[in-house]
Parts: sequence; structure tokens; C-alpha cells
Amino acid sequence: MSRIAYANGRYVRQAAAMVNIEDRGYQFADGVYEVIAVANGRPVDSEQHFDRLQRSLEGLQMEPPCHRLILVLIMAEVLRRNHINQGFIYLQITRGVAPRNHAFPVRDTVSSLVVTASRKNLPTAADIAAGVKIVTVPETRWSRPDIKTVSLLPNVLAKQDAVARGAYEAWFVDKAGLITEGSSTNAWIVVDGKEIVTRPLSQEILAGITRQRLISIARESNLIVTERPFSIEEALAAKEAFLTSTTSFVMPVVTIDDRPIGTGKPGDVSLQLFDAYRHYLDQATDGR
Amino acid sequence: MSRIAYANGRYVRQAAAMVNIEDRGYQFADGVYEVIAVANGRPVDSEQHFDRLQRSLEGLQMEPPCHRLILVLIMAEVLRRNHINQGFIYLQITRGVAPRNHAFPVRDTVSSLVVTASRKNLPTAADIAAGVKIVTVPETRWSRPDIKTVSLLPNVLAKQDAVARGAYEAWFVDKAGLITEGSSTNAWIVVDGKEIVTRPLSQEILAGITRQRLISIARESNLIVTERPFSIEEALAAKEAFLTSTTSFVMPVVTIDDRPIGTGKPGDVSLQLFDAYRHYLDQATDGR
Repeated sequence: MSRIAYANGRYVRQAAAMVNIEDRGYQFADGVYEVIAVANGRPVDSEQHFDRLQRSLEGLQMEPPCHRLILVLIMAEVLRRNHINQGFIYLQITRGVAPRNHAFPVRDTVSSLVVTASRKNLPTAADIAAGVKIVTVPETRWSRPDIKTVSLLPNVLAKQDAVARGAYEAWFVDKAGLITEGSSTNAWIVVDGKEIVTRPLSQEILAGITRQRLISIARESNLIVTERPFSIEEALAAKEAFLTSTTSFVMPVVTIDDRPIGTGKPGDVSLQLFDAYRHYLDQATDGR
Repeated sequence: MSRIAYANGRYVRQAAAMVNIEDRGYQFADGVYEVIAVANGRPVDSEQHFDRLQRSLEGLQMEPPCHRLILVLIMAEVLRRNHINQGFIYLQITRGVAPRNHAFPVRDTVSSLVVTASRKNLPTAADIAAGVKIVTVPETRWSRPDIKTVSLLPNVLAKQDAVARGAYEAWFVDKAGLITEGSSTNAWIVVDGKEIVTRPLSQEILAGITRQRLISIARESNLIVTERPFSIEEALAAKEAFLTSTTSFVMPVVTIDDRPIGTGKPGDVSLQLFDAYRHYLDQATDGR
């Protein structure tokens, strides 16, 4: 069955869903996006995603293409047409089509809106038991990774570097030797028994929705979460490490730069948090 | 008359020239580009542009969509169909269409190729006599501005900042207080009589084709060109300043951050270099 995408007012076969070559998303990476989890046929934490989307738009002085309620309807229709119960919604907004010029268009330009959806199950028990490998790479990105833009080329190159080295993800390391975040995930370690550590929000990292949700879930479980930067050395010496994102959920990390973390197997806290997050996904959308 | 664009094998009306929403240029800024001047109906310094394009492609481990000779033919056909004698060619190559995933596509993917052309005359004597205003902004870009990618959002925001402040261009200033380059131009000053200064090539600036050509032209005119970094203070104290790019040619700078450079009028060296570059454009393509 063909996938159906929404592109600028029309629901069309994804293979035939097109944008103009002078869309500023294509020529200038002048756009923002969100990826939203779908569980039990419904988007998860969509208000939080919309709030972040609004912050991204404001960061680029970009107009939303429509009211938030219209977005909700479009997302529901894309899910319906693609019969998706478990998976993701991808939503991209760009500054629209205009004659090529770095500065914003002088004439009013309508923002472009693209929405797609894809089916994907939660990680299996075997996926989680295997965990993932991380490599570290120098921080190469621009000064505002907190804005969720499609200007993702440095992230692409970092992720490809990871894949080429047999790893799942690359963690960026800043000039001070501190880990900022992954190319598409937030980075966490567990130290001194059960203290969970992740870098605090700033202009240097993305405010992950799964990150924020997991902080709440962990604290509700009486775990200690500390938001502070941590170094690559501290990560290598940690009891456990894991990563979070909408598409990776909560994934245990077993090696960093080929050196085992803790026992070299997923740790208890990571496994507990994955279970708690899976439970959250189930109940968050159940019957709502 | 409608403009005609080349997009992935077809010559089509530009308004109808489309790319798929999963083109990696649109979702990841995973692409490179060139802008080539056209004088007397012919591309200027196209071999130099092709060489730089090849370096950009290699920097991203990206395959060219076709042989250089095919690109030459496509560019000539786009010029012919648009009846362009004076203006520019825009050429964009992306990693092609693939299911969204940060890492490079696993299956062989055909790079996308888009070519457009536009008509534009050289600056008038009045344009040159007026010169342009510059503002300075902190360097915000990723670590490899030498690769000419479409991941241009920081450049867009800098240029828009300039326009909003009544200026023509923004010059990036690094953490050491040294000017790197403009958002879409190279930066130059003239000091101590007739010494022309521009930042040396490195990973921090784009190897401008007009920049390189102008160094040759200046030296042929027995002017002294020194490639070294210069600070914002040195620029403010300079006798003259100017900028170069394919689309801005050689443009005198009259103020930086609202402070006049030299007399506050275009300087003699800048005007001499504009004339010499205009002459070069004329003879470079004349009868070839």
C-alpha cells in the first residue's frame, strides 16, 4: 500500500508529494520540524511538541502555516489514511517558496507544511538487551542546536561517522571535553549507584520531549535526576549510560568509543526507565 | 515569459519544477551548490566552480549526479532556453530521495540535480558610487564553512539581521575578534596606502571564486595582496573596505556598524578593482 503524505494542502501518494525547487527549505535549510511518537493510534505529548515547534518558529521569525488545531486535524488524517497505530509523525515547516535570496522574502510568503507518518514498533526485548554502541565526535554544529531546524548536515555527518564505525549514534563533545548530546538523541549517564545525570537545557542542546518526560517519570519513581554537564571521562567511568529520543525511546548504551560502560551490558536503571517509559506511552494514549 | 529550470532530467517551467519531500536536501540540508556568473552568454570561471563543487561533494562523501561535461551541456541549455546573456546560473546537488534517516541511504541513491538561471546586469556606476553598508555579527556557523553546502540557515539569519539594520551584508566575527567572511561574500580591507588584505583560505571561510580571481587581477596590476586575518578594529581603521562574490562582484563598503570607512565614500583601490574585474568578465568570455 502506498504511503500518503500531506504536502501544502493536499493528501497525495508520498512518492508524488513534491515541493518547489525554490522552497527555502531546499535552498537554504530555512525550516523547522518535529517528530512525534504515535501509540495506540494517537500522538504522544503533542502539546509539548507543538510548544517546542512554536519556539523554533519564533527563533527563526517564521510564521506558522496554520493554527495548532488545524495541525492536529492534519496529523490525525495522515494517521488515518496510513492506518498507523504505532509509529511516528514527521512534520516540517519551511519559510515557503520565493526567488532565491538569503534574506527573508520581502513579499508575504506562505510557509510550506509537510506531514508524513511511518509505522514502527517499540524496540523488542532483544533490542533493549543488546543495547547500542556510541562513538564520540567533536562538536561541529552551529551556535543554536536548541532550535529544531532542518539545517541538519553536521548531524548527518556525525551519524554517518557512527554508522561507519559500527555504532548506533555519535555523541558530540564540546571544546571543554563535555558531552553536549547525540546527533539525534539526548545523552545520559548513571553514576554513584542511582544518580541519573543529563546535560541541562541551554542553547547548546535540543530540549528533547522524551528527555523532559523521562525526567518526570524518573522522579515519580523516586530516582534522583541531576541536570549538569558531564565529561567523556565521567561517561566512560559511569555505571550505566543511555540515550533518549522520540524515535529511539530509552535505549541502553553498552560501549562508548569501544570501551564498555559498567558491565558492558544494559544496566538496571536504564532497563527500569525503558519499562517505565513504555508504560507511559501505553497509558498516555489509552482511551484518550 | 516563464523561466525554465532543469530538475532531475527534465526542463520544466520553474514554477512547476519540483523535488520530492523526502529529498535529503529538503529534510537534512544534505546538499551542495554553486552560483556561476554569466557574461556575454557564457559561464565565467566554470572550471574553478566545478573544481570547488567537486571538493564540496567529496567533503560530504557525495556522488556527482553526472560527468562534468554533462553539467556543461545542461547549463548551456538552461541559458539558451532562458535567453540569458548576463546573469547567473544556480546549480544544486543533493544526496537524493530516501526514507528519512540521518545516516546516508543504505541503498544506492541517485543524487538530485537542479539548475536554474536568472538575468541580472552588472552594478551600475551609481550602485558602485553609493557602496554598501556592513554590520558585524558573531560567528555562529558550523565548523566547515569551506564546504559550500545548502545548510545555510545561519547565513540566512545573519543576512536578515543586516537587512533589518539597513545594511547590505553581515560580516561574521570569530571569538578572537577577527572577521571571517560575509554571510554570502568574502571580506577585504585596504590598509597603509595600497596593501589589500583578505583572510587566508582555511576551513573557516569559503574559497570564493571571485576572491581568487581578484587576487590574480590585483597582482597583475602590481597591487600588493596579503592573505592574513584582520580584526574588526583594523577594518574600522582601514582606508577602504570592499566585498566580493559571484553575485556582488567587487562592491565598495562605505560603513561598518554605521562607522564610516576611510572617507565614507568608495575608495580608489576598490573602484580600480571593480573596473578591472568588470574588464575581466568581458574579456574572459569574449569570443570563446
